[in-house]
Amino acid sequence: MEQRILLTECPDSKGLIAQITNICYKHQLNIIRNTEFVDPVTGQFFMRTELDGIFNEHTLLQDLDRALPLGSSRSLLCRQAKKVVVLVTKEAHCLGDILMKVYDGSLSLNIAAVVGNHPELAALAQRFDLPYHFISHQGLSRAEHEAALLQVITPYQPDYLILAKFMRILTPRFVAHYPNRIVNIHHSFLPAFIGAKPYQQAFERGVKIIGATAHFVNEQLDEGPIIQQKVAAVDHSYSALDMEKAGRDVEKAALSEALQFITEDRVFVHGNKTVIL
Amino acid sequence: MEQRILLTECPDSKGLIAQITNICYKHQLNIIRNTEFVDPVTGQFFMRTELDGIFNEHTLLQDLDRALPLGSSRSLLCRQAKKVVVLVTKEAHCLGDILMKVYDGSLSLNIAAVVGNHPELAALAQRFDLPYHFISHQGLSRAEHEAALLQVITPYQPDYLILAKFMRILTPRFVAHYPNRIVNIHHSFLPAFIGAKPYQQAFERGVKIIGATAHFVNEQLDEGPIIQQKVAAVDHSYSALDMEKAGRDVEKAALSEALQFITEDRVFVHGNKTVIL
Amino acid sequence: MEQRILLTECPDSKGLIAQITNICYKHQLNIIRNTEFVDPVTGQFFMRTELDGIFNEHTLLQDLDRALPLGSSRSLLCRQAKKVVVLVTKEAHCLGDILMKVYDGSLSLNIAAVVGNHPELAALAQRFDLPYHFISHQGLSRAEHEAALLQVITPYQPDYLILAKFMRILTPRFVAHYPNRIVNIHHSFLPAFIGAKPYQQAFERGVKIIGATAHFVNEQLDEGPIIQQKVAAVDHSYSALDMEKAGRDVEKAALSEALQFITEDRVFVHGNKTVIL
Amino acid sequence: MEQRILLTECPDSKGLIAQITNICYKHQLNIIRNTEFVDPVTGQFFMRTELDGIFNEHTLLQDLDRALPLGSSRSLLCRQAKKVVVLVTKEAHCLGDILMKVYDGSLSLNIAAVVGNHPELAALAQRFDLPYHFISHQGLSRAEHEAALLQVITPYQPDYLILAKFMRILTPRFVAHYPNRIVNIHHSFLPAFIGAKPYQQAFERGVKIIGATAHFVNEQLDEGPIIQQKVAAVDHSYSALDMEKAGRDVEKAALSEALQFITEDRVFVHGNKTVIL
Repeated sequence: MEQRILLTECPDSKGLIAQITNICYKHQLNIIRNTEFVDPVTGQFFMRTELDGIFNEHTLLQDLDRALPLGSSRSLLCRQAKKVVVLVTKEAHCLGDILMKVYDGSLSLNIAAVVGNHPELAALAQRFDLPYHFISHQGLSRAEHEAALLQVITPYQPDYLILAKFMRILTPRFVAHYPNRIVNIHHSFLPAFIGAKPYQQAFERGVKIIGATAHFVNEQLDEGPIIQQKVAAVDHSYSALDMEKAGRDVEKAALSEALQFITEDRVFVHGNKTVIL
Repeated sequence: MEQRILLTECPDSKGLIAQITNICYKHQLNIIRNTEFVDPVTGQFFMRTELDGIFNEHTLLQDLDRALPLGSSRSLLCRQAKKVVVLVTKEAHCLGDILMKVYDGSLSLNIAAVVGNHPELAALAQRFDLPYHFISHQGLSRAEHEAALLQVITPYQPDYLILAKFMRILTPRFVAHYPNRIVNIHHSFLPAFIGAKPYQQAFERGVKIIGATAHFVNEQLDEGPIIQQKVAAVDHSYSALDMEKAGRDVEKAALSEALQFITEDRVFVHGNKTVIL
Repeated sequence: MEQRILLTECPDSKGLIAQITNICYKHQLNIIRNTEFVDPVTGQFFMRTELDGIFNEHTLLQDLDRALPLGSSRSLLCRQAKKVVVLVTKEAHCLGDILMKVYDGSLSLNIAAVVGNHPELAALAQRFDLPYHFISHQGLSRAEHEAALLQVITPYQPDYLILAKFMRILTPRFVAHYPNRIVNIHHSFLPAFIGAKPYQQAFERGVKIIGATAHFVNEQLDEGPIIQQKVAAVDHSYSALDMEKAGRDVEKAALSEALQFITEDRVFVHGNKTVIL
Repeated sequence: MEQRILLTECPDSKGLIAQITNICYKHQLNIIRNTEFVDPVTGQFFMRTELDGIFNEHTLLQDLDRALPLGSSRSLLCRQAKKVVVLVTKEAHCLGDILMKVYDGSLSLNIAAVVGNHPELAALAQRFDLPYHFISHQGLSRAEHEAALLQVITPYQPDYLILAKFMRILTPRFVAHYPNRIVNIHHSFLPAFIGAKPYQQAFERGVKIIGATAHFVNEQLDEGPIIQQKVAAVDHSYSALDMEKAGRDVEKAALSEALQFITEDRVFVHGNKTVIL
């Protein structure tokens, strides 16, 4: 007996749930949990099915392909930890939070390596017995730096890259290597305060709530599909630095909840949005 | 074309979702939204299906009854406002919140009448053109008072009674007339501070968070199935009265969210718990 | 014996708290609650002092004026309900929330009148025995409409105007009549989604949290000092309309908390920010 | 120039703020932030004053002692990290959170050592170069085990003990060594679910919110002064184990916020409550 997750996405039509669950039933699979969603604007159907049983993967997928309409995609995922590479700059809190959550079993990730454009966080990675690759951007063009990053990252064959306060903007060329597979934590409640120094911007605007946004990276800065957002109350007594400090917990929470969704195969990307089932 | 909600509850077995959704498909009904849950402890299966189409109610239910295991229950509900009677004592905020939400269309309820054991809220009910029945408990035994309440309530044939800060304890005899159909708002985060004067109790304990609990009333005081709970932060500067004032918004939120669930036919009662799909 | 609130604002200097509290002590006034703040960027000092005793207002203010540095302002406020005029368009929820909170004693405001550019909410105002002035903007230039509004509003001599979902942009000319005395509820988490249709914008961006912002109105659209912000979680299943509905509670909460601060004389305006003591 | 914090506690009387701030002024100290509270039930006055300047500690305290009424206590604290010993059992998340926050500078604590009644967390302590003392309770009476703990802890002369999921009940005899200086994290929203297995209790009661409580330990189990409480929403789909997992973040948040208050010298204990200025 094994547990797997079936993800289905296709144009909506009547009877889809019945068809898919019937096929599962014919395969003698038990549905532990089933969630689905139809986007009322685009008419796209999404379904996530937690299954339990003995899987004849080939036949099952064949049966599904026969039943599903054209333009469908489906995948049958094993419950195994995703392999990730974490990219960082100098700030320890997001990396540290991920490391501790993996360590204490709260987050099921296989961290292959940490890559930084500064040396500061090497010691932290090493405390958790992880390789740390220091790839300075000093003296390199953006293209050269990204080539150097890819050279280090590619051999690990990661499922996802996690930008845990990696303070460099990635080019579309780099992003294209990992489409919808790069998770960034932006330190504002997007779309407020796009770009640099969001806490300084928030301070100057006099907001009463600060936020953080975990999102997939696409070609446009801070415009990728949002996975999770979290907020915290602030007041007039917070300096920009106080907001930054208060923001750390918010950033950690948004990023680790987004990663949790990903580890559970709950995230579909649909245009510039996410559907989380 | 019409929209209806199918609620199914039965002992879990393999293929239930497939069977039920197949029957819906054969009836050419479109599933707008489907949610289900299996209680891992009791093995009970719950499913709520929003359907769209032309309903042959008799045949549909017959087909379901044939397919479902023994001990199943299913109902096919029309989307129409539940009829309720609201019971109150002196405090206006919960009644007022319900009245305003019904007035502005946020809450879909058909309020048949307001019944109070004090006269204070008659004016408020009348502002919204509702009958107000003042049934004083003065000089009556508990049994007599409840008989008087029932005499007034029964003719309205309400789907639910809402205790919107009704400060009387109802006997099992009364409750038996409306099993799992009486919604109470208790002014504490149950099971903390059961019984009288919960804000005073909370103040004396020095809590940093206060709460409110909306629950179905059963035979045991403050022990019925919880529908929703809400909380708010407090601190040392709050007197018991300040907590009570801060608690008003929490009470309103917990009660109106619980009522929202009920109006959407999302609440199953399972033992002393609720399953909200 | 009486309770009053002393608000002081001046450039910071050493010993200010000692000087002010000394003067209060010499006047045999008891300090119930004292809060102060120094803006570290501008060096401005703000203090709010709840006092209890017998007030010789003239001498007390004279003593303060002697002690405080040039450029100071101070005021000694009685605890009495502010007089307000509420401006609305068609949506009932914010007006209704204010009316109910005033009715049940949660909010201490003296509502002089409701003014609407549509007739829809007249019935609601009348349920609470308030005058409703329907001032249509149809066929009027902006200047003419604002003149008509002022003609109705001015005789009430309101302390504040409350824009409770008043869907018209006010000109600087109008705003100048009530500097930092017009409170607006904007249906987004400012500065995200400035301008029209913020819920539609939020929906299109695929945010996971929606918000509302209560702020003072100044010459620039949606740029005035923020008083309070509140948020609520949403997900992919929310249409723009669902977000708007979910936003109602957020709007009510942000607006009524802002009004609560104002009724307690806790809000200082400092540049484009508020200091809330 | 130096920054210090003056904490004052005494029976309330008119003019206290004036007297204390005057003395600070005469010592040419600048008040950065001042907060105070009078308990309306007990009439006790509490004040916390952040001061900046050159301190003549002896004279300052002498001046204060002359001015303050009988039964006063005051202390002038340097801003230096408190020394703590952390007690643990097997669960890593609270210890790990504290270690990471100290590591990344979010929490200013001087962790002298970690003491565990199980060996599991030795490796984690060692990753952060901290001594780990494994003091098994196996085969020891409670008195013997506590004596062994004290023997290890005492030489460190800690300001506080932190019970970071230390799953042993301490006797009043032990607690008396560190009155109001032992911080515990209890995995429920006290006073709900006192005692063992609170998540199991919460699951069985069908609550919709779970919580955690950071409190000082006194002689009575789970009855000490509450410092901070945090909550998280759960639903019917959470098993007791799911609640426990979801509770980890709540526990970490409640404990680390409580520790933050303590590191900033903001916590007064008053009877069985805390006043946090």
